[in-house]
Amino acid sequence: MPANASVVIDLKFERREVDAALPGSYVGRKVLHASDRSADLSDARYAVLWKPDLDLFKRAPNLEVIFSGGAGVDAILAVPGLPDLPIVRFVDESLTTRMSEWVVLQALSHLRQTPAYLAQQRKHEWRELSQPQASEITVGVMGLGVLGLDSVAKLKVMGFNVIGWSRGLKQIDGVETFDSSGLDAFLARTDILVGLVPLTDETRGIFDAKLFGKLRQGGALGKPVFINAGRGGSQVEADIVASINGGVLGGASLDVFEKEPLAADSPLWAMENVIVTPHAAAASDVRALFRNSELQMQRYEAGEALQHLVDRKSGY
Amino acid sequence: MPANASVVIDLKFERREVDAALPGSYVGRKVLHASDRSADLSDARYAVLWKPDLDLFKRAPNLEVIFSGGAGVDAILAVPGLPDLPIVRFVDESLTTRMSEWVVLQALSHLRQTPAYLAQQRKHEWRELSQPQASEITVGVMGLGVLGLDSVAKLKVMGFNVIGWSRGLKQIDGVETFDSSGLDAFLARTDILVGLVPLTDETRGIFDAKLFGKLRQGGALGKPVFINAGRGGSQVEADIVASINGGVLGGASLDVFEKEPLAADSPLWAMENVIVTPHAAAASDVRALFRNSELQMQRYEAGEALQHLVDRKSGY
Repeated sequence: MPANASVVIDLKFERREVDAALPGSYVGRKVLHASDRSADLSDARYAVLWKPDLDLFKRAPNLEVIFSGGAGVDAILAVPGLPDLPIVRFVDESLTTRMSEWVVLQALSHLRQTPAYLAQQRKHEWRELSQPQASEITVGVMGLGVLGLDSVAKLKVMGFNVIGWSRGLKQIDGVETFDSSGLDAFLARTDILVGLVPLTDETRGIFDAKLFGKLRQGGALGKPVFINAGRGGSQVEADIVASINGGVLGGASLDVFEKEPLAADSPLWAMENVIVTPHAAAASDVRALFRNSELQMQRYEAGEALQHLVDRKSGY
Repeated sequence: MPANASVVIDLKFERREVDAALPGSYVGRKVLHASDRSADLSDARYAVLWKPDLDLFKRAPNLEVIFSGGAGVDAILAVPGLPDLPIVRFVDESLTTRMSEWVVLQALSHLRQTPAYLAQQRKHEWRELSQPQASEITVGVMGLGVLGLDSVAKLKVMGFNVIGWSRGLKQIDGVETFDSSGLDAFLARTDILVGLVPLTDETRGIFDAKLFGKLRQGGALGKPVFINAGRGGSQVEADIVASINGGVLGGASLDVFEKEPLAADSPLWAMENVIVTPHAAAASDVRALFRNSELQMQRYEAGEALQHLVDRKSGY
């Protein structure tokens, strides 16, 4: 492997953010853009990707390492003809911090009844609502990767009782955790469910009416709340709507959707106690992406092991 | 002082919350209610008060200790004919935790542009907004008592850069602090101002147009934001409205007001990027109030020093 091998970029982010982050990045390397349809990409040894063109791997046949532009890699794994190359996930303090900001904001918004208070505000109505405190609420975090662990820690600092679930059991100091076999017990204890699971065959559609029906009823919030910051494919939106209308769920905060952008005629937009954000919980910081991938390229060229590799068998 | 002396209660809280908290409280003591206008209160040695009747101290001339039902004592200090007795402030983990929930929620709501996203949601509009992260924002907390210190710690955990101000300089590990003489320097660094000051002659009307004009302009949020969770008397609402309309402030979250309830015709209700809550940031937990005051009564009767005493000279 030569030093300073070339990089192809195919990031379906805002173009101006990519352009702004490029100066000073990948110093000494040739940087190719897949958006330049006439460019010869055969030099490229590295690809930095987010929702890549379907013909990217044909145009760039000499890649050695793929870098994901986001924390989730399901979109890359789904590209037809994906070559059998190492895939490096984007792990970054900035992305983690932003995700926890969003998760804690949503948990506090439901705890402190933001939708109800804003509705009163629109009516110029001064009325104090009965208010439990965080320690009376159990937040169950599903998915205990880097993002899940950071959310768990910050939710605990805010005073929530926090429990965690992951496919295989993970030990976290001071937090009760459950694995696959303990899912029902985990759900039965959960007042606010936070979804931070990767999208895999096992998690597709996992957040459905059956699962919502197993969440704790009659906790300090009355009804359970669903917060999804992971992947839209893990949720069944028709079931979220039906579960809220049927009184099984008390509300939701959703940043991800089965199909994005969320259709303008989705009932979710207008439901009371549902907060919709446009897949904005944790935007990738492009500068950090370039910095981190550059660091991994340098490791690779120095003969060191790549970090944050995706396990293609488990799908994340 | 006899053991198990009598208590008079004059709490203008929701009556059902007081009634629900009484069983099991003040065991062995006679409990008198000021709301019973025919009751003889001359036995009472302790008074547990929140917005007491103006004639309370005439009806209960043999008090030895006054317990405040809230963190702020300005309303008690303002009662005409207040006897020169020790006043015990209500300090409670529950009250502190609730206040920090509200402060962190409001700081995150402005950071993550909740009002703008909810406005888009009402229009079924999917549009990602440019988003700074918490570390790009400096939150300046004014007032570094028990409540201020807890908010400082939790805002820091969420990733904000945090600085603090108090009348006399306080040292906080890892947090830059300012005192009276450093107010302008503190404001010039502050993107989100959190007011947690007691209401005294010095703080009455302190949050006015002149002060807002000293906050940092052009930070990562564009314009500074004002969050008040302390006392309404410390703010000039006409100046908040004018500063927002004039482009000096970018928004506000207000839980307290010069006159409560906030008048239905206040322009604050309907202003974009202003969040109004009805003095609900940190409702006193009546059970905790009774428990804490009972503990202090036991200390007093055992000849020990009372804790959390108000300094009447400084007014808090």
